[in-house]
Amino acid sequence: MPQANRQIVLDQLPQGKLAADHFRLIEGEIPQPAEGEALIRTRYVSLDAANRAWMQGATYRSALDAGQVMAGGALGEVVDSRDPSLKPGDLVWGDVGWQEYASLPARRLSKLPAMEPLTHLLSVYGVAGLTAYFGLLECGRPKPGETVVVSAAAGAVGSIVGQIAKIRGCRAIGIAGGEEKGRWLTDELGFDAAVDYKAGDFKKRLREAVPNGIDVYFDNVGGAVFEACLFGMNTFGRIACCGAVSQYDQAAPQHGPRGVPGLIVTKRLSVRGFIVSDFADRNDQALADLQSWVQSGQLKVQEDVIDGLENLPSALVGLLAGENRGKRMVKV
Amino acid sequence: MPQANRQIVLDQLPQGKLAADHFRLIEGEIPQPAEGEALIRTRYVSLDAANRAWMQGATYRSALDAGQVMAGGALGEVVDSRDPSLKPGDLVWGDVGWQEYASLPARRLSKLPAMEPLTHLLSVYGVAGLTAYFGLLECGRPKPGETVVVSAAAGAVGSIVGQIAKIRGCRAIGIAGGEEKGRWLTDELGFDAAVDYKAGDFKKRLREAVPNGIDVYFDNVGGAVFEACLFGMNTFGRIACCGAVSQYDQAAPQHGPRGVPGLIVTKRLSVRGFIVSDFADRNDQALADLQSWVQSGQLKVQEDVIDGLENLPSALVGLLAGENRGKRMVKV
Repeated sequence: MPQANRQIVLDQLPQGKLAADHFRLIEGEIPQPAEGEALIRTRYVSLDAANRAWMQGATYRSALDAGQVMAGGALGEVVDSRDPSLKPGDLVWGDVGWQEYASLPARRLSKLPAMEPLTHLLSVYGVAGLTAYFGLLECGRPKPGETVVVSAAAGAVGSIVGQIAKIRGCRAIGIAGGEEKGRWLTDELGFDAAVDYKAGDFKKRLREAVPNGIDVYFDNVGGAVFEACLFGMNTFGRIACCGAVSQYDQAAPQHGPRGVPGLIVTKRLSVRGFIVSDFADRNDQALADLQSWVQSGQLKVQEDVIDGLENLPSALVGLLAGENRGKRMVKV
Repeated sequence: MPQANRQIVLDQLPQGKLAADHFRLIEGEIPQPAEGEALIRTRYVSLDAANRAWMQGATYRSALDAGQVMAGGALGEVVDSRDPSLKPGDLVWGDVGWQEYASLPARRLSKLPAMEPLTHLLSVYGVAGLTAYFGLLECGRPKPGETVVVSAAAGAVGSIVGQIAKIRGCRAIGIAGGEEKGRWLTDELGFDAAVDYKAGDFKKRLREAVPNGIDVYFDNVGGAVFEACLFGMNTFGRIACCGAVSQYDQAAPQHGPRGVPGLIVTKRLSVRGFIVSDFADRNDQALADLQSWVQSGQLKVQEDVIDGLENLPSALVGLLAGENRGKRMVKV
């Protein structure tokens, strides 16, 4: 076993756009597990837009501070354990952070089954897949024949949301940046249409893509795209609020979308925010559904795996710029 | 029976603030009912912030046009009928408009029971009471011990919302303009506290009034008050969106409240818009509850009755300026 623990520290909190040089690679010690803890060897670190939101202030977790090892969910392997629930070789999920090794309390780690490929534990069977599943089905409550619009549609969550919408008999429209992503959504993943939010006539294109209006909007981005979809909602429509990536990579936004709360009243909308752990007691059913859809070929899994701990900063910066298709992660 | 029908016409659509001289009093003919219609003599016209919203554009009803008789819900008495469901002397509710007489299709009129005082049919047993009841209980879903905040708390709906919250064992906080309204809410209606949104330190006062955060926010106003409450919401809080009166008496608003959708996600809020007719199939239960609370003295009814059709324009302008306490109506 090596003696050094390569770690990436959040060197300074970004004031505006995040850049790779806000981070710094250091070598620390490999921590010994205390009683009740396990020593984890990191295998894959998940990249998520929320990583950036944590730098803006307290969210569903406390804010990040400059100087700390960058936080982040990861899949790891137990190499030493001082807790009876874990043994060497076990696979676990937890907030391991951007480092090769961490000692963490066993109660803050979730044991995962071995599977091939392991990466699916971070994508379709991980936070991304479960977020798509619960957000769409519980908050969006789509009915067959309805129109479902999802933003950041080529991302880890959005690409699954649109496919589940199709499985449930809905019309699925993806909003993504660029024509190429749009073609991938329609040609490879079976979305009915895609709309490029970077196009100058985005609002017009969106209207044309939803001739019968929007019944369910799964929002990953907030901002101008949220506003455009709000204006296109049908009476009694539902908006599932999953994230606001358009708002993360900057100082706190100065104002919110127009139409709030006026259109929420006149259209009688339900707008609901959630995070995936709110539904943890129903993970088994969700995983069973996701597995059956993957196995039948109805749900395609797209992953974007980058090699090397040292590439985590640029991988996150790129994710915020919309570079990835499907679930981005870094193999450590 | 008189030969003339005094009517108030919306002479021009307001571009900014509504004023009494946007209206004009005319004398028209008393219309004869066609087959299936009834001739209505107006008794009380309801004043509602929504009257102003109808001038901004289509809402849950089509927009108003300059030159038409001003629209508005009213209690009237059938004086002639060419429909078997209605007979002279019947009391009805409908969009009679600002005029002494109207002939309307019977299917667009709701028959009401005779009662003393008749005005309660426009306040606690009318749209205001039902809006408060369904908005709070169905959209807000308050649990005993929770903190409920309502804006426009001294208005027709707000004054009932806070009292129902108290009946249901909640802490009730009213937001209203001015110290005097606040005292009325706490001393007469039993609210636990009131916060003056016109005070310079409104946000600080609001925070102090809700030391345990806000579980349910019943929004009648939108804008800056909505934003302040959004920032004060507890995790899994609920916002019932009833109206946005702060946004009505102007051109369309330029932007919405900050924190949308970011705080909706991180706090996992449910934000739901509604109008009272969405729950019409449960009116009987609501009316039974409201009657029992009024009869037991738990729910106090405040009405603000102005005399004379010609005073409708100034009554609406005054309502938008927050002049009224409880349900404002004009006796015709």
